[in-house]
Amino acid sequence: MKPPDFLADVAAACEPCLDGLLADGEVPADLAAAMRHSVLGGGKRLRPALCLAAARACGAADAQTRLLPAACAVELIHAYSLVHDDMPAMDDADLRRGRPSCHRAFGEAVAILAGDALQALAFEVLARPLPGVAAADQLAAAAILARATGPAGMCGGQALDLAATAAPPDDAGLWRLQAMKTGALLGASLRIGARLAGAGGAAFDCVAACGERLGEAFQITDDILDVTAADASWGKARGSDARAGKVTAVSRLGLEGARLRADAAAAAAAAALEPLGAAAASLSELARYAAGRLW
Amino acid sequence: MKPPDFLADVAAACEPCLDGLLADGEVPADLAAAMRHSVLGGGKRLRPALCLAAARACGAADAQTRLLPAACAVELIHAYSLVHDDMPAMDDADLRRGRPSCHRAFGEAVAILAGDALQALAFEVLARPLPGVAAADQLAAAAILARATGPAGMCGGQALDLAATAAPPDDAGLWRLQAMKTGALLGASLRIGARLAGAGGAAFDCVAACGERLGEAFQITDDILDVTAADASWGKARGSDARAGKVTAVSRLGLEGARLRADAAAAAAAAALEPLGAAAASLSELARYAAGRLW
Repeated sequence: MKPPDFLADVAAACEPCLDGLLADGEVPADLAAAMRHSVLGGGKRLRPALCLAAARACGAADAQTRLLPAACAVELIHAYSLVHDDMPAMDDADLRRGRPSCHRAFGEAVAILAGDALQALAFEVLARPLPGVAAADQLAAAAILARATGPAGMCGGQALDLAATAAPPDDAGLWRLQAMKTGALLGASLRIGARLAGAGGAAFDCVAACGERLGEAFQITDDILDVTAADASWGKARGSDARAGKVTAVSRLGLEGARLRADAAAAAAAAALEPLGAAAASLSELARYAAGRLW
Repeated sequence: MKPPDFLADVAAACEPCLDGLLADGEVPADLAAAMRHSVLGGGKRLRPALCLAAARACGAADAQTRLLPAACAVELIHAYSLVHDDMPAMDDADLRRGRPSCHRAFGEAVAILAGDALQALAFEVLARPLPGVAAADQLAAAAILARATGPAGMCGGQALDLAATAAPPDDAGLWRLQAMKTGALLGASLRIGARLAGAGGAAFDCVAACGERLGEAFQITDDILDVTAADASWGKARGSDARAGKVTAVSRLGLEGARLRADAAAAAAAAALEPLGAAAASLSELARYAAGRLW
């Protein structure tokens, strides 16, 4: 499945924006280099694209220029999580996007700090006034991002993932783990976009429902790709989950069962957007892509 | 010097507030335990006290009840920074406040996540609407906290500190390191309090000036205490800076020179508050205490 044009457009727009956010003369050189290494020059920028597409779906036709820094804040959170996930005490990954992981390139101490600093920078960026956005909406967006990032979201999911190696979770535990580790930030990307577009009530709920099912479909697709994808297009070694003894959607449901569940979630994600009509076209296309990559 | 009553009052008020913030049923048990271990049962709560005293100085007489969660957000940031500073790749500390450090008690992976989660929780708490605070002021407070925490603040200071072992900084480099590593969050505590009290213009500037000089005095006092304090009252082994080969205010200026500089900074911190009159009494007392502990 070909990536939608909207995704490529957002990725192109994010690059100079992220570059600017990471060019702060007050930041010590080593730390700045580690942060730039971890953010720039790679990544599909799916989360910013989901954020901006959600804003468009809620009526902010000019989201891509006006709200771009906020969308990049979500990407900074994603980048920080990868830096810390790669640490020796966590997944112990030497490579990330085909280059040395942050701790391999800069040492563990700087990698801890770079991750910490990227998280703080994300909130700094999201707290800077955005044109045409009410302060209350921006504060709500910051709360959404923080909740999705923290102990009841992504951090919590990573903690469950660590514990899962020693004590494999049951089905409910697996879906909870996946919802927190991956789904929380993906879902938050959409809700942040909606909130920054000033959406409340029904429109916000449509986008939130889409985000929840999209997150589910995305993670199951990840599990499927780990089994089926050609190494080159997938970017990591096929079968790494099985070798690590991880419980996944595929190990639980089988390949065909996982596909059915991902398809159902993707269909539900798209269906949730129907009340928003044509404004949701980009988001709908992204949701189908995120859920159905490569098959 | 006896700690001011206001500090003890705030510490007593913070404990149940922090306990409540760390009792979220959505958080996995291991992670929750590591976060609670790192925050509860210790700490003078100086930063929350500075935040609330600054709010009172700017006219929020009821700050201690109304703004308490925001003050605790600053403490969560402080606690996260201690967890990560103690990591083996950083200061490699086995003990913190007389108990095992987070990574000794829960392992490195959980300690990384606990620090990450505490940072996110701080921003979640600060983004929750506070009674009587305009959303724009709260957003500004979040921006202040994020800036002080991130790569141009505390994280950057820690990066400079790491680099200082290999290449000792000159005087300007040392003051920059100290201003970022310690001063940024202390100063932010005051400015956040002022902003949440709705202060702008001259009152905010008074508090900001106080915070800047207070941070300087506090860190120099830390350097002095490392040389002079009895182990029991100081809480860490005397002379640890010198053994680690650290450049400090004392190694640069000598003990007497450091005392003079700390005194001057403390006097400037108190003088900055004069235009605020009696409302600034608690803050002024705290500033003198923070700068002049134990001598």
